[in-house]
Amino acid sequence: MTNPLAEADIALATELFSTLQERTGDGVGVTRVAYGATEEVAHDLVRDVGRALGLEVARDFAGNTYVTLPGRDRTQQIVIGSHMDSVPQGGNFDGAAGVVAGLAAIAGLRQANCQPERDVTVMAIRAEESCWFPASYIGSRMALGMLPPDAVDRLVRSDSGRTLAEHMTDLGYDPDPVRRGVAHLDPARISCYLELHIEQGPVLAAEGFPVGIVEAITGGPRYREGRILGRYAHAGAAPRGYRQDAVAALGEFIVGVNQLWEELTAAGHYSLFTFGIVGTDPRLHTFSRVPGEARFCLDTRGIREETLDEIRRSLARLIEAIERRHGVCFELGPDSGPSIARMDPGLMRRLAACAERRGIAYKRMPSGAGHDAAAFAACGVPTAMLFIRNEHGSHNPEESMDMADFAEASRILVDFLTALRTPQTNAAAKDLSCSPRYLQSVTYLVKGSGV
Amino acid sequence: MTNPLAEADIALATELFSTLQERTGDGVGVTRVAYGATEEVAHDLVRDVGRALGLEVARDFAGNTYVTLPGRDRTQQIVIGSHMDSVPQGGNFDGAAGVVAGLAAIAGLRQANCQPERDVTVMAIRAEESCWFPASYIGSRMALGMLPPDAVDRLVRSDSGRTLAEHMTDLGYDPDPVRRGVAHLDPARISCYLELHIEQGPVLAAEGFPVGIVEAITGGPRYREGRILGRYAHAGAAPRGYRQDAVAALGEFIVGVNQLWEELTAAGHYSLFTFGIVGTDPRLHTFSRVPGEARFCLDTRGIREETLDEIRRSLARLIEAIERRHGVCFELGPDSGPSIARMDPGLMRRLAACAERRGIAYKRMPSGAGHDAAAFAACGVPTAMLFIRNEHGSHNPEESMDMADFAEASRILVDFLTALRTPQTNAAAKDLSCSPRYLQSVTYLVKGSGV
Repeated sequence: MTNPLAEADIALATELFSTLQERTGDGVGVTRVAYGATEEVAHDLVRDVGRALGLEVARDFAGNTYVTLPGRDRTQQIVIGSHMDSVPQGGNFDGAAGVVAGLAAIAGLRQANCQPERDVTVMAIRAEESCWFPASYIGSRMALGMLPPDAVDRLVRSDSGRTLAEHMTDLGYDPDPVRRGVAHLDPARISCYLELHIEQGPVLAAEGFPVGIVEAITGGPRYREGRILGRYAHAGAAPRGYRQDAVAALGEFIVGVNQLWEELTAAGHYSLFTFGIVGTDPRLHTFSRVPGEARFCLDTRGIREETLDEIRRSLARLIEAIERRHGVCFELGPDSGPSIARMDPGLMRRLAACAERRGIAYKRMPSGAGHDAAAFAACGVPTAMLFIRNEHGSHNPEESMDMADFAEASRILVDFLTALRTPQTNAAAKDLSCSPRYLQSVTYLVKGSGV
Repeated sequence: MTNPLAEADIALATELFSTLQERTGDGVGVTRVAYGATEEVAHDLVRDVGRALGLEVARDFAGNTYVTLPGRDRTQQIVIGSHMDSVPQGGNFDGAAGVVAGLAAIAGLRQANCQPERDVTVMAIRAEESCWFPASYIGSRMALGMLPPDAVDRLVRSDSGRTLAEHMTDLGYDPDPVRRGVAHLDPARISCYLELHIEQGPVLAAEGFPVGIVEAITGGPRYREGRILGRYAHAGAAPRGYRQDAVAALGEFIVGVNQLWEELTAAGHYSLFTFGIVGTDPRLHTFSRVPGEARFCLDTRGIREETLDEIRRSLARLIEAIERRHGVCFELGPDSGPSIARMDPGLMRRLAACAERRGIAYKRMPSGAGHDAAAFAACGVPTAMLFIRNEHGSHNPEESMDMADFAEASRILVDFLTALRTPQTNAAAKDLSCSPRYLQSVTYLVKGSGV
């Protein structure tokens, strides 16, 4: 059913991973600093490989790198993207695996002399990890004209204290189009956006699936500046009943939120709740003082609007009860949470069909973590994501992706590209589905005559 | 029943408070740094007042100041003590009120020409507030030869980073006797130790008592270095059931400890529980990371051994259950908590009798906070404490002690001193009690003929 001559170039992928490790290793893991020299090295590698393969290579004003296998119809493109930056002392695969898989796939198509019906562009994206600049999807949002105009001058890199605009200019890129709201990519010209990414959690490994097909990228309220205000008092002198103890209130809040999580799960809602940072105020807390203030960051995630509505309602109820009980006051602060990004059902079905054809077991699952795919989905581009099994989580040097799983995911990608003849509307995709009849009816054009 | 001629010199006390405020005010509250220039100013004031009153004045190697009204029997002494240091930007009364009350009382005796049966010594103590050096009752324990010999070279002052020994030497005092375990005071020669102190909690104000008679100073396990070790994970990628979330465990621990407090209270145990410091690790926590570590300080207090036993047992049970439920590991770290210091029942009854004679309402109550009295009690000296009503807690500039309440407490002190003819054993004190018969039978020797 699939193009028998086009196979993902796994040897190239292996070499790329090892070169990346070599050039951006930091002695512990890898560090590819957003708009830093190490991210640049990674993007240059992508550019050089694209050139060596005889593909079209481009950079946009933001420094995103594009490697394109030209199609017959050059007005439309399929974008296969992911990011090249990493967290400090991170792993080699988070982000890079998606770009390398894209390059391996189009290298395979190129080697098999397949010309796709429309352009297939591998996009290496800048600055996805929000540890560098406190914002999400910076590179992809700049390319799509979606980053707020003031962001380049407002966002400051955590390690240097300098602005995004300054770092862009250092490397020869141009922050000015962002300030003017100019986009490099036109969503109307993108048939679909596809992103392969290692799973950052343990689900695929625990449940024995080499790949996952993402149904949605979670959104939800996120509070980075939560505070509970009580009253400081002497630990020995303020008896029970005379306290407005911010930490006692925090304890009940943590337990209450975890109970909410349990209830939502029991009611069939997928959700995630994390207090990533909690603490008393180092300037005022002491061992023997009832704390008058506690701070917290609360991150909530869901993939259905009704889940997020229920989270907001329940948090308000919980907070009100704790405020009454402890005589404290909660300040949630601004909600910096993203919207839910739904993946395209037609693309999901097509990926599933490709996996089934190869006998590759897959799991449909939410992505709890955010990805550049969310930026494309937010622009109305039909979007899909494939997760690759990975042990020990991500954002650490212990990331452990098996190349056999990577190869399976890359094969699905090649099959997807070679089976994708015309842009499918969701409705059309649904009609065609991946029934054997559909799979038998698709036409494969090989040997330079188009896909 | 009381010496009609001896009255506490409240005018002197008022002047002393105002001089202290003037000389150690910091613009916000008062700051009298332990072994700093401002504590020295306060001690010098005590010394100068003693001299002006024609009393015996002394300093020990540790810089504690003694003002003595000589008694007929000079081999025994009653010590009325409290500390002169304060927390940074603290209030004018915490500590100083007890010394000022002692001075007002012996000034009154002096003015009335009363010679007590034995020496009455007002002791102005150094370095009680543990915010300066991380240890309790430094001045009184040095005087009693109870501070560990290495402490003077080990303890470092929080604002200067220099050792206790260095700061002592700066002011002309001598750390060497501490290193050699030498005491200045002989507990066998102290008939009793008495300390007046503002209440640092809201109980007397809330319940309408001008004074409190302390039954015991709390002790109990204290953990300054508690840790919960879980595993860091990606907030979006680690689903429910795959986490070892240190903050979820911390939340349950806080709530569990507060439930324990409720149960102990319902079962008639006086206790106090405070998490003064909690927090995730600033080097590793981030907004979107499931925290793999949480730290806490837990301070527990009770006035009965069986309460402390129950606290230890219940904490162990609670921790075991949370460790099992969350796959985390607790480390309580060393227990730096003090022992319970029981006040002398005979002295308590005598203070109560003095209050009753004056028609002053009093409440028998525990002291949740530690005081120098605990150091004397630990040496076997019969010890008592009188609390003075105070609003807005202590350790802040809002401390609000009414001079009328201070005067009532000082009157009780004078009556106590003039009624205290011979040292009472607990048994004797119990026998005599404060029955009208006892009160009528005591002999008051006035006008310089002895008390």
